[in-house]
Amino acid sequence: MDPQMASLKDQMFQAVAEDVDSKSSNKVTVVGIGAVGMAAAFSILAQNVSSDVALIDMFENKLKGEMMDLQHGSNFLKNAKISASTDLSVSANSRLIIVTAGVRQKEGESRLDLVQRNADIMKNLIPKLVEYSPDTTLLIVSNPCDILTYVAWKLSGLPKNRVIGSGTNLDSSRFRFLLAQRLNVAPTSMHGWIIGEHGDSSVPVWSGVNIAGIRLREINPSAGLDNDSENWNECHKDVVNAAYEVIKLKGYTSWAIGLSCADIASAIFRNSNSVKAVSTLVKGIHGIDSEVFLSLPCVLNANGVVSIVKQKLSPDELAKLHASAALMDEVQRGIKL
Amino acid sequence: MDPQMASLKDQMFQAVAEDVDSKSSNKVTVVGIGAVGMAAAFSILAQNVSSDVALIDMFENKLKGEMMDLQHGSNFLKNAKISASTDLSVSANSRLIIVTAGVRQKEGESRLDLVQRNADIMKNLIPKLVEYSPDTTLLIVSNPCDILTYVAWKLSGLPKNRVIGSGTNLDSSRFRFLLAQRLNVAPTSMHGWIIGEHGDSSVPVWSGVNIAGIRLREINPSAGLDNDSENWNECHKDVVNAAYEVIKLKGYTSWAIGLSCADIASAIFRNSNSVKAVSTLVKGIHGIDSEVFLSLPCVLNANGVVSIVKQKLSPDELAKLHASAALMDEVQRGIKL
Amino acid sequence: MDPQMASLKDQMFQAVAEDVDSKSSNKVTVVGIGAVGMAAAFSILAQNVSSDVALIDMFENKLKGEMMDLQHGSNFLKNAKISASTDLSVSANSRLIIVTAGVRQKEGESRLDLVQRNADIMKNLIPKLVEYSPDTTLLIVSNPCDILTYVAWKLSGLPKNRVIGSGTNLDSSRFRFLLAQRLNVAPTSMHGWIIGEHGDSSVPVWSGVNIAGIRLREINPSAGLDNDSENWNECHKDVVNAAYEVIKLKGYTSWAIGLSCADIASAIFRNSNSVKAVSTLVKGIHGIDSEVFLSLPCVLNANGVVSIVKQKLSPDELAKLHASAALMDEVQRGIKL
Amino acid sequence: MDPQMASLKDQMFQAVAEDVDSKSSNKVTVVGIGAVGMAAAFSILAQNVSSDVALIDMFENKLKGEMMDLQHGSNFLKNAKISASTDLSVSANSRLIIVTAGVRQKEGESRLDLVQRNADIMKNLIPKLVEYSPDTTLLIVSNPCDILTYVAWKLSGLPKNRVIGSGTNLDSSRFRFLLAQRLNVAPTSMHGWIIGEHGDSSVPVWSGVNIAGIRLREINPSAGLDNDSENWNECHKDVVNAAYEVIKLKGYTSWAIGLSCADIASAIFRNSNSVKAVSTLVKGIHGIDSEVFLSLPCVLNANGVVSIVKQKLSPDELAKLHASAALMDEVQRGIKL
Repeated sequence: MDPQMASLKDQMFQAVAEDVDSKSSNKVTVVGIGAVGMAAAFSILAQNVSSDVALIDMFENKLKGEMMDLQHGSNFLKNAKISASTDLSVSANSRLIIVTAGVRQKEGESRLDLVQRNADIMKNLIPKLVEYSPDTTLLIVSNPCDILTYVAWKLSGLPKNRVIGSGTNLDSSRFRFLLAQRLNVAPTSMHGWIIGEHGDSSVPVWSGVNIAGIRLREINPSAGLDNDSENWNECHKDVVNAAYEVIKLKGYTSWAIGLSCADIASAIFRNSNSVKAVSTLVKGIHGIDSEVFLSLPCVLNANGVVSIVKQKLSPDELAKLHASAALMDEVQRGIKL
Repeated sequence: MDPQMASLKDQMFQAVAEDVDSKSSNKVTVVGIGAVGMAAAFSILAQNVSSDVALIDMFENKLKGEMMDLQHGSNFLKNAKISASTDLSVSANSRLIIVTAGVRQKEGESRLDLVQRNADIMKNLIPKLVEYSPDTTLLIVSNPCDILTYVAWKLSGLPKNRVIGSGTNLDSSRFRFLLAQRLNVAPTSMHGWIIGEHGDSSVPVWSGVNIAGIRLREINPSAGLDNDSENWNECHKDVVNAAYEVIKLKGYTSWAIGLSCADIASAIFRNSNSVKAVSTLVKGIHGIDSEVFLSLPCVLNANGVVSIVKQKLSPDELAKLHASAALMDEVQRGIKL
Repeated sequence: MDPQMASLKDQMFQAVAEDVDSKSSNKVTVVGIGAVGMAAAFSILAQNVSSDVALIDMFENKLKGEMMDLQHGSNFLKNAKISASTDLSVSANSRLIIVTAGVRQKEGESRLDLVQRNADIMKNLIPKLVEYSPDTTLLIVSNPCDILTYVAWKLSGLPKNRVIGSGTNLDSSRFRFLLAQRLNVAPTSMHGWIIGEHGDSSVPVWSGVNIAGIRLREINPSAGLDNDSENWNECHKDVVNAAYEVIKLKGYTSWAIGLSCADIASAIFRNSNSVKAVSTLVKGIHGIDSEVFLSLPCVLNANGVVSIVKQKLSPDELAKLHASAALMDEVQRGIKL
Repeated sequence: MDPQMASLKDQMFQAVAEDVDSKSSNKVTVVGIGAVGMAAAFSILAQNVSSDVALIDMFENKLKGEMMDLQHGSNFLKNAKISASTDLSVSANSRLIIVTAGVRQKEGESRLDLVQRNADIMKNLIPKLVEYSPDTTLLIVSNPCDILTYVAWKLSGLPKNRVIGSGTNLDSSRFRFLLAQRLNVAPTSMHGWIIGEHGDSSVPVWSGVNIAGIRLREINPSAGLDNDSENWNECHKDVVNAAYEVIKLKGYTSWAIGLSCADIASAIFRNSNSVKAVSTLVKGIHGIDSEVFLSLPCVLNANGVVSIVKQKLSPDELAKLHASAALMDEVQRGIKL
């Protein structure tokens, strides 16, 4: 700042707290500014979940463009602070770090090769991010979400409660919307949970699906089963296909996953003990004995996952969960950390 | 719905108001679902400005993808209703219609040719949209914004107060952010207005720039002038360059213009009489005698623009405004409606 | 306005839409400005449920004082409009009218005498209110809530879906808080419903109490029963005692009932199809054949109660509901309308 | 908790983070739960400024009643945590403490005697509150606000930036509403500042009153002066009388001052650098050389008052400010700390 500039500022303001460094207590860093990362950042800003958002990416131009575009709207965002850098130090003192960075499957690439490439990205990111924000909670969104949450946990040295995968919070939201649409009620009045692996092998817990405490299965005992003449299971199939379908139609998914991240962030910042389906270390629950991450309903607060809700699962649901756990474990064994 | 389906629903619900058609009183339609249209729709949903958003576009796949992606998040959007169609009838009974549709300049295309092509798009849209929502207010965002707002007004048959261009509400937001950043205050505490044409020839009203009522010019009388050693005018230059810069960096602008639309929509839905810089018919103000639209600070409520604030402009500011008006008028004369 | 005044205004503003009368589409009138009415009005304003609130009461001074106090805060309420009058015409064109007016039991007064006195107040209010706002929905909060909702319905000539009692939406909120506190989860993650009469004979539907779809009764089959060693029924007893306890401690109840009204209003204004426990005409449901109002989970949207959720009730729960219905019916027969 | 209880909880939840003590980062304590304190607490909760509010008062019953009433609404408050105690330790780790405690003037009591009685209350409160929350910011609302803010600062040992009086943030809000009503614009679009002493001798800065940067005085040079034929100064007189008038009409003021506190709290929690008129140590500004607190426009963020905006004041405005400062100084000299 040139001397005259300082002079105008001096004429306009009298400093009171000269040297203090004012710190937000709700800083969020979003790592990776593709469609998912930007939808997460924008949801968090527009819904006032945080007033301090830092963006990190390796593409400097796009990064600066996204930062400027958000800053130009800060007048409409209750004066939120937006920063961005290719340097991880911009994340310092974050209370929450949302990781959406990752590569996509190449043609002919095996799933394990893809996982390894994304694990390598985590290796470059996680330890340094935790160094800059030792008290942070990590929210992993990159896919395959459950395995990369495990990888991030291993790399971070953080306690298990502070490493979370966005998991089936989104699948559950999709499920509620689709069920709600059939019955013409608000999605938030339609209760239903999808647990397990985020994606193809996710498990809908049909036994608990209810409106105002009335279970669908009290009316239609075969709801969700193969022999159900009303085909409720279409709703779960549509959930599994949702990402593929949206990607086919618009090229990527963004809004719903962004809002799901803001929803999880809000539970953490408000220290609310809300129950949400997120990916957590499930060893010791539902008979799972391997060190894997899968989504279950979790109580979330300022400490991350403080407890896991132990649903009553049917033998079939348990079997699917165990199959997912076994698959996770197998894939994890192949990763070089 | 198959009979059994109806039967489950019948078992779960007792209809009370059998045949009523429940209408939202805050329906918004967004026409054009490019980056701008989607950012507007998402800002309006995430900030709870409306609970009923319809999307219109001619690309059926992308349209369905965007609709699904928003619907999958409705659980996080206080149960907002999202609809979409290539058919304009989906907009019926909208209280606000935001038009972002339009084509971009082709290489070698004259500005007038571009305007004509976008005017032709308006011809296909506006009369039908108004037929489906005769009481609507139109908010034109497509560029060149001021001229297309004039075109939409002519085509709509609506009173002038109900046809608005998003205009320099965004430029003013950018201006406040850039000024605020220099002085380390919140953008909403930094008051400043950019009027006139949205874009290159916009006019910053330096005389009114102030914090807590203290004008910058009381401290630095040449603030904003060419001979200003503190170069405040850089802030205006950066505003003019902002769109170009962001487009160069990330390929398009989205977040800030989306938030600006939500801001204008909120003033209308809340019937608030807030003053915002939007493009309005300026004939008869500031000595302008042609039938053109330019941005001035306007009082916005449920009726759209109810009055225009008559700022005290310097001869230089007036001259720039008149030049813009003359240019608009000339371009408009070349358009075939 | 004196001529000079007009002149300053004329110099500052150019009218665009000269004679239009801008109407809010979300106007709420609150009738009765005791602690309950004011908490409802303030909750609705502070949570941005409506931007246009009218207050009605017969005590002119207090009414003006409350209006001024709210108006002095409109700068912090996104410019909401607040009006007030002893004249019912101030309510014209309300989309929702919340009635909290009523007298309290006098010493030695029979319950029926109290009901008659409050019914007489309704006679003076309801027909005129509906005349000024023929398309309104009525939300009756005055006690005894269920009977006065019936009275208001009879007096109003409105269809049954548009006359609602605030009923057990509050009791359910208290129930969820008390259950949630025991289990250390967020109240919104604790699902449970109280139905029937608002007050002493309300019915907790224990069979549906759940977290993430797991019913308490799956773990403790006697939860809520008399022989339950964990005494879950204490939570319902505390709900029944809540109003008495709060009145004993602070003299009246206000905040929670105010928020409950805002919650119901939000479902109506957002046209959301949310399920809430409100008092509605229950004739024909759960074997009730008299024309009485009791709370059941209802789907609420812009049309008021569009349907009622038919919970599976135990014989004991049904018996209690029928007893309440019989009592209501008997009291109603004694009222002179 | 009895063993079986623990057992149900154990069956329902699997603890993940066994012993961690989850702390909110946005805890607010409100000391004094009269109409003002409760309106502040409720505004903060309803507007989501904080999710963790503690109440302190010496009247145990009323305190418990208010706590329960708020808790019963937590289901509608995004699961905010509400605690209360007569013991100051309930405030531990607050980021903001709002002090509304104080006694009212007794008949025949001198102003100084009143001040001393309230200063004595501060002596009992402030040091202990700061002990429990050494990093807190204090917001003093009790009257006389400016003097008690000085007293609290002296007693607290906190740096001057972290002790704030609610001051004329409310007077400025009233001023904007009254001006806005005359001109039919939104209060937030009507800019005007009242500085100096909160109450009778407050100073309206007429020179800065503007809409969209156009000063009233550019149109009517005598706006606010005694010889103004349009009597704009009525607006300031109405501001000065506002508290008296509202107290006369409804017995006390509550909503607007509660919202004003929430507004200040939001600037602090969002670390926004918003400019608000609050009472701060003004020694060294505008030629004031005594150690007194008066309201001036201040930049507020997570550190409290980081700087003061130096408005251009007229000789008359300066004289009034100096008179207030002298009066404060004189009263302060009479206080025994």
